[in-house]
Amino acid sequence: VLHKDVLVIGAGVIGLCTAYHIKKGNPNLSVLVVDHNAAASQGETAKSFAAVRNCFTSEPNRLLAHSTIEFYKHAQENLGVNLGLELIGYLWLFTKSQYEHFQTLEKEMRGQGVQFKIWELDDLKSMIPDLLPNPDTEQSRLVGSEAVYKGVQGLNCGVVGPERVAGFYEAELRKLGGELQFKTDVQILKLGPKEELKIPGEPLVWQDKVFSGVETSEGSISADNIVVAAGVGSLSLFDAAGVDCPVKPKKRQVFQLRGPKALERLLTTSGFNDRGTVPVTILPRAGVHFRPNRGERSIWVACADDLGRPYLYEENPMPEDSYYNCSIYPILSDYFPCFTSLRPSNSWAGHYDINTVDRTPIVERVANCVIVTGMSGSGIMKADGIGRVAAAVLQGRSETTLFDGRKLQTSRIGLKNRSVGREELVL
Amino acid sequence: VLHKDVLVIGAGVIGLCTAYHIKKGNPNLSVLVVDHNAAASQGETAKSFAAVRNCFTSEPNRLLAHSTIEFYKHAQENLGVNLGLELIGYLWLFTKSQYEHFQTLEKEMRGQGVQFKIWELDDLKSMIPDLLPNPDTEQSRLVGSEAVYKGVQGLNCGVVGPERVAGFYEAELRKLGGELQFKTDVQILKLGPKEELKIPGEPLVWQDKVFSGVETSEGSISADNIVVAAGVGSLSLFDAAGVDCPVKPKKRQVFQLRGPKALERLLTTSGFNDRGTVPVTILPRAGVHFRPNRGERSIWVACADDLGRPYLYEENPMPEDSYYNCSIYPILSDYFPCFTSLRPSNSWAGHYDINTVDRTPIVERVANCVIVTGMSGSGIMKADGIGRVAAAVLQGRSETTLFDGRKLQTSRIGLKNRSVGREELVL
Repeated sequence: VLHKDVLVIGAGVIGLCTAYHIKKGNPNLSVLVVDHNAAASQGETAKSFAAVRNCFTSEPNRLLAHSTIEFYKHAQENLGVNLGLELIGYLWLFTKSQYEHFQTLEKEMRGQGVQFKIWELDDLKSMIPDLLPNPDTEQSRLVGSEAVYKGVQGLNCGVVGPERVAGFYEAELRKLGGELQFKTDVQILKLGPKEELKIPGEPLVWQDKVFSGVETSEGSISADNIVVAAGVGSLSLFDAAGVDCPVKPKKRQVFQLRGPKALERLLTTSGFNDRGTVPVTILPRAGVHFRPNRGERSIWVACADDLGRPYLYEENPMPEDSYYNCSIYPILSDYFPCFTSLRPSNSWAGHYDINTVDRTPIVERVANCVIVTGMSGSGIMKADGIGRVAAAVLQGRSETTLFDGRKLQTSRIGLKNRSVGREELVL
Repeated sequence: VLHKDVLVIGAGVIGLCTAYHIKKGNPNLSVLVVDHNAAASQGETAKSFAAVRNCFTSEPNRLLAHSTIEFYKHAQENLGVNLGLELIGYLWLFTKSQYEHFQTLEKEMRGQGVQFKIWELDDLKSMIPDLLPNPDTEQSRLVGSEAVYKGVQGLNCGVVGPERVAGFYEAELRKLGGELQFKTDVQILKLGPKEELKIPGEPLVWQDKVFSGVETSEGSISADNIVVAAGVGSLSLFDAAGVDCPVKPKKRQVFQLRGPKALERLLTTSGFNDRGTVPVTILPRAGVHFRPNRGERSIWVACADDLGRPYLYEENPMPEDSYYNCSIYPILSDYFPCFTSLRPSNSWAGHYDINTVDRTPIVERVANCVIVTGMSGSGIMKADGIGRVAAAVLQGRSETTLFDGRKLQTSRIGLKNRSVGREELVL
């Protein structure tokens, strides 16, 4: 049986980053990452909306995201690695009441280094001629679109290339001697007794328990420590082993729009960033948001799922026409009439691993296993921080130092003594 | 289509008690309870271990359980209803370190009216001749049985008849004009838009949402408000509607033991209570516990499930021989050799609806639906309190007055602003 010091399940950005930080912290450990796909980052990582922001009201969220973005900047600027990071900003188009709510949250975030620029409505109108800030059609009234009052731009935010980020960690992991094995589907997380007695039903309730390894499509692998970071693929493994985990799968969808000059004008919006493009933009209604993809000359559109969208894992999730046409489009075309009559040129669907309690990641030790789960759609923007926390938890450290030098108590994003606070800045 | 003001899904003790408190608080409401079984309390209620305790370190747990037990006492003593309540006590057999931990928790509980009696080892030995407080065999060393140091008896604790409790609430509900409909399997919790537009995919993300009713095996039922209190049966309904809920199903098993004189001696133990029987007794190892059933002249044995027992719903869950023989028996027969060689005369299995985060019930409003879930094995001992909280939540009240006059902020056992504290006194 193949044996490793550390086995990481999942070669997405979270698994690779975690494996890298473990190996970096202790180069003598043998570290193997396994994944059911044929290469790294072919799962949810490839389906990401690929936007990053450091604007969170929950301190652990903010610490993780801020330090992760700082690391991506460092890697790109100082290490010369192209991660596709473009700090084009996040632009919240707020109604008056949304802006007033934001003002109650702003000070604490600014105090901890989150930078915002507030845009007056006249600025927004002149900078984004395609914005209709006060939609007033029958459709607007139907969908409940309210007038934009101000814009709030998170400056240390933008877009990134998730496969590039994952590829970076993969390359660094390999440089350190870490290994990867693909086309390896983990079927069982083997929980057994510390001292096997050959009694039926082991591990029995009175036995100390240990994760001895995994059964995979390619045979058994044993390991001293296991990290499970396989997104929604982790969930059935946890349930079968009786690991407490309040995370559930939910479909995520991204729609790509390409087309007439109007979109080109959005893509080349001036004034918000040095790339001369529209920021990642959050509309005031129902969490509809879009981002430019300058390379593709396209706009990606998505929507924050909520009540009414099932918690369900699908083997082959498909984007839904009606989701774009009926849920997203009326709001999108209301505020940005340049999208009128446009239909997606491409679309894809995957799964969020949603922490149903607080929509914030979980890193927890269970016996000799570290569970890294519940990314809830923000994995790419917290990956480096999460990887550091997971490595710390594996090593038994109660605190980790993030890339930006700030410290995070690992238990804060655990399950037993969780303390993440309430996230008020949701999309 | 049948229409009711309030539809309660689940005619177990929790659903019935909730329906009763709703109807009692507002007798003009039409209240219907539906259940897939042919009669009330045929689901998990009938499979309960049927023990009640008010000893909890988490304040909401303590408030709910204490007031519920007080209500059961009141119903039995003052209303003349036989609920099968016997306050025979809960007896924790603690090792030295367990007792020291208990001492750090004791003061707060006592300060809020939880009564304990501490038993010295010599008392325990003379009162329970069948107790072997310091097992020292090869088996003891194998299972890690440590010596009993002291006994702690929770006085306002004991056993109850769950079907009797459910039957009481059913009768009271019917007296008030509440209705029940059986053999009615709820298949879909219908979430729709407040204002229907006949657009594909409703409810759309921008629509205000409302639970309009349910689809059942017997046709549709519509309702202004819905309460979902169907134990593990609720979980697939929640997932399909996208309702956030960190609850998962786990098998529960109870083993009934009958037999030789030694058990009869346990059943007739003197000194702990006015029934002259052994209390509900918690052994020092692995959460193994038993309770007397005086009517049956039997002892029921169970074990607190933990890591290694899968989160899984089974259509027809069966008790496992190996669970009794290998997990429970070595510990049970270690401390109580009178169980040696005894095998269960009966056994049954059902499901816990386990709150994977804190193992404490959840009552939360989601649109016009109240979810009552996550009993985690303590439903029967908190039912009256839970029913009052659920009725308060349905009525939009932020606080409820429990039977004993104490007040509980309903949000404390909700999901959005949950504040249950850490429960330290687990079995």
